[in-house]
Amino acid sequence: MIKTDILIIGAGPTGLFAVFEAGLLKLKCHLIDALPQAGGQCSEIYPKKPIYDIPGFPEVLAGDLVDNLMEQIKSFQPGFTLGERAETIKKLEDGTFVVTTNKGTEHHAPVVAIAGGLGSFEPRKPLLENLSKFEDNGVAYMIKDPEVYRDKKVIIAGGGDSALDWSIFLADVASQVILVHRRNEFRGALDSVEKVQELKDKGKLNLITPAEIIGLNGDTKLESVLIRKISDAKEEIILEVDDFIPLFGLSPKLGPIGDWGLEIEKNAIKVDTFDYQTNIPGIYAIGDVNTYPGKLKLILCGFHEATLMCQSAFQKIHPDKKYVMKYTTVGGVSGFDGTKKEAPKAVVKAIE
Amino acid sequence: MIKTDILIIGAGPTGLFAVFEAGLLKLKCHLIDALPQAGGQCSEIYPKKPIYDIPGFPEVLAGDLVDNLMEQIKSFQPGFTLGERAETIKKLEDGTFVVTTNKGTEHHAPVVAIAGGLGSFEPRKPLLENLSKFEDNGVAYMIKDPEVYRDKKVIIAGGGDSALDWSIFLADVASQVILVHRRNEFRGALDSVEKVQELKDKGKLNLITPAEIIGLNGDTKLESVLIRKISDAKEEIILEVDDFIPLFGLSPKLGPIGDWGLEIEKNAIKVDTFDYQTNIPGIYAIGDVNTYPGKLKLILCGFHEATLMCQSAFQKIHPDKKYVMKYTTVGGVSGFDGTKKEAPKAVVKAIE
Repeated sequence: MIKTDILIIGAGPTGLFAVFEAGLLKLKCHLIDALPQAGGQCSEIYPKKPIYDIPGFPEVLAGDLVDNLMEQIKSFQPGFTLGERAETIKKLEDGTFVVTTNKGTEHHAPVVAIAGGLGSFEPRKPLLENLSKFEDNGVAYMIKDPEVYRDKKVIIAGGGDSALDWSIFLADVASQVILVHRRNEFRGALDSVEKVQELKDKGKLNLITPAEIIGLNGDTKLESVLIRKISDAKEEIILEVDDFIPLFGLSPKLGPIGDWGLEIEKNAIKVDTFDYQTNIPGIYAIGDVNTYPGKLKLILCGFHEATLMCQSAFQKIHPDKKYVMKYTTVGGVSGFDGTKKEAPKAVVKAIE
Repeated sequence: MIKTDILIIGAGPTGLFAVFEAGLLKLKCHLIDALPQAGGQCSEIYPKKPIYDIPGFPEVLAGDLVDNLMEQIKSFQPGFTLGERAETIKKLEDGTFVVTTNKGTEHHAPVVAIAGGLGSFEPRKPLLENLSKFEDNGVAYMIKDPEVYRDKKVIIAGGGDSALDWSIFLADVASQVILVHRRNEFRGALDSVEKVQELKDKGKLNLITPAEIIGLNGDTKLESVLIRKISDAKEEIILEVDDFIPLFGLSPKLGPIGDWGLEIEKNAIKVDTFDYQTNIPGIYAIGDVNTYPGKLKLILCGFHEATLMCQSAFQKIHPDKKYVMKYTTVGGVSGFDGTKKEAPKAVVKAIE
C-alpha cells in the first residue's frame, strides 16, 4: 500500500504544481495518472505546441512547461503511479481514503485531490471482433516503453500526429515498422509528415495506404493481421507481426470517478471556491475537472486552485498546527531531499 | 482625458497580466501607478531577488518576471500613467468612471480594476522642518529619470539597497555623489556594498558616515544641506548641493482608495470570488489588495483573479456579445499592433 499526505489523481500541470505548494507546507504527494507519463494533455496531446497564456511566459511549449514544473517540484520527491487509472475509493473509519487503480495498486492518504483534467484519456479503439483478447498480448493503444518494441515487427494504424511520431521513433527501434492509414493523406506537423516520407523513401518504413486492419489472428498472442486495401479491388493481405498499435486518438472520460458519489455538473465536479473541496470532505477537485460559478478551464486557474487546496489540506491533516505563510523570496524552498534554495541574504557591512 | 476599456490601478504583476487577459478579449487597458516604473514591488523593492513559487519557474528574479510580463502584453499596447497616485473616482451618469491622479491626470473607463497590491508605496520622509518646500525643487524620494541628475551635485541619504544602488548608478551620471548614512554599516546585497566601497576608494563617490542631514537651505530651490556628524564632537558641515534624495524605504498605504466607498476589511478590499468585483458594480479588486474567504496574497493568485475579472468586465462592456473562450494554443494571440502569434498549423499531406 502506497502511503502519502495528499493523493493527487491526475499528473497534468495542475496536479504537478499542487506538489510544489504541498511541499512548501511539508506535505508529501503521490500522483496517479492513466497516461504513461506526467504532464497530462500537455505531454500526451500537444507537447510541441506553444501556449501563450501562462503568466510570465510570452510563449512556452506545452512539453517545456511540464519539464519546468517537474524541475520545480523535484526536491519535493513526489511518487507516481503511471499508466493506471484510479478506479475505486474507500473511506476508512478514521476518515482517510484508499484509492485503488484498475491494476489493483492501492494508495492510502488523508486527503485526495482530483486533478483529472477533462478525465482520463481513453484510447479510441478499432472495431475488431477479438481485439480485447490481444490487449497486452500484442495490441497496445499507448506506448509506455518503446523498448518493448526493440527488434519487433510492429504495425501502426492511424493518420495523425501520434501515428506519425511513433512511426518515426520506432523506425529506429523495431526491426520493421508498417504504417497503415485509411487515406493517403496524413494530418500532422509538416516536419513529421516529411520525415515519414523520407523514412519511406529510404525503405526504413513500410506504408500501406489507403487501407485498414480488418482482422487479428493468433493463438494466445497476436501473430498476424489481416489488411484490406481500400480500392475497387479490395485486395486483402495477411501480414505476420509481433505488435499492433492502433493510434486513433484519445478521448477524455470522467470514468470511474463519476461513480464516487461526488456532485457532478456538466461532466465536472462541483467545488466550493473557498478551498476547492467537493461535497465529500477530504476530497478536493482542482483544475479543468472542477466547476464553480465563473469557472474557466485554464491552466493558470488550476495553479491558483491547487494552492488554496493545499492550505485547506494542511488544516485537515494538521488540525492543531497553525501555518503562517512565508513568501518563498523570504523563506526559500526546503526540499525533502535536503536541498535548500533561497535568496542571497543581505549583508550588514561597514564601508570604511 | 485618457480613455480606455479597463482602467487598472497598480502596475504590478497582477495588473500587468490583466492587460494580457483583457487583450485576448479585445479590451484595451491603461495602468496608473504611483511608482515611476511598471512592476510594483517586484521592480521597486526586490528586482534582483528570486521568486520560487511562480508556476513553471523553478526560480525567477522578480525583475525578470516583470520583464517577461511586459513582453507578454506588449502587443496589447497598454497605456501607462506612472509616478502618479490615483486620487479620486467619480461615477458618471452612464455608469462609467473618471479617475483623477494627484497630479490631475484624468482617466475615463467603463471598468476600473484596482490591482493596488499592499497600497501605493509612499516614501518614508526625513523629519526636516522645511522639507515640503523643496519637494520637486531639489528634493525627491524616488528617482523617476536619472538623467535629471546629469552633471548635478547630488546628496543621497540612506543605508539600504536603494541608497547603495542609486549611489552606484548616479556615480556615472552626476558630477558628484555624496552618500550620507547614520551608521558606518550598510545593509544590502554584498555586491552593492562592495561596489560602493570600490567607488569610494577610487574617489568617485563621497561617503559621510555616521552622519545625518539636519537642515535644508535655499531660496526657492534647494541650495545646500546641513549635515551633522554623529560623534562626540557633533561637527556640522554645510554642503552646497543641487539635489537631496532621502532613500529611507517605502511603506505601502491603501491611501485615497480607502475613501472610495469600497467595503474594506483588514486593510483590503472585499470582493466576490465569482468575478472579483467590489461592492461598487464596475469596480473590481485583484491581487494582494483584495480579500475573500481563503485569500492568499500570492502573485499566482492575482493572475487567476485578473483572468476571471476580465471575463466579467467583458460582459459589462459588451452586454450583448457572447464570448466563447478560445485556447491560445488553438486561437493564437492577435495583438492590437497587428502582430499574430499562433501555433504552427497541422498540414494534411499525402505520403506517396
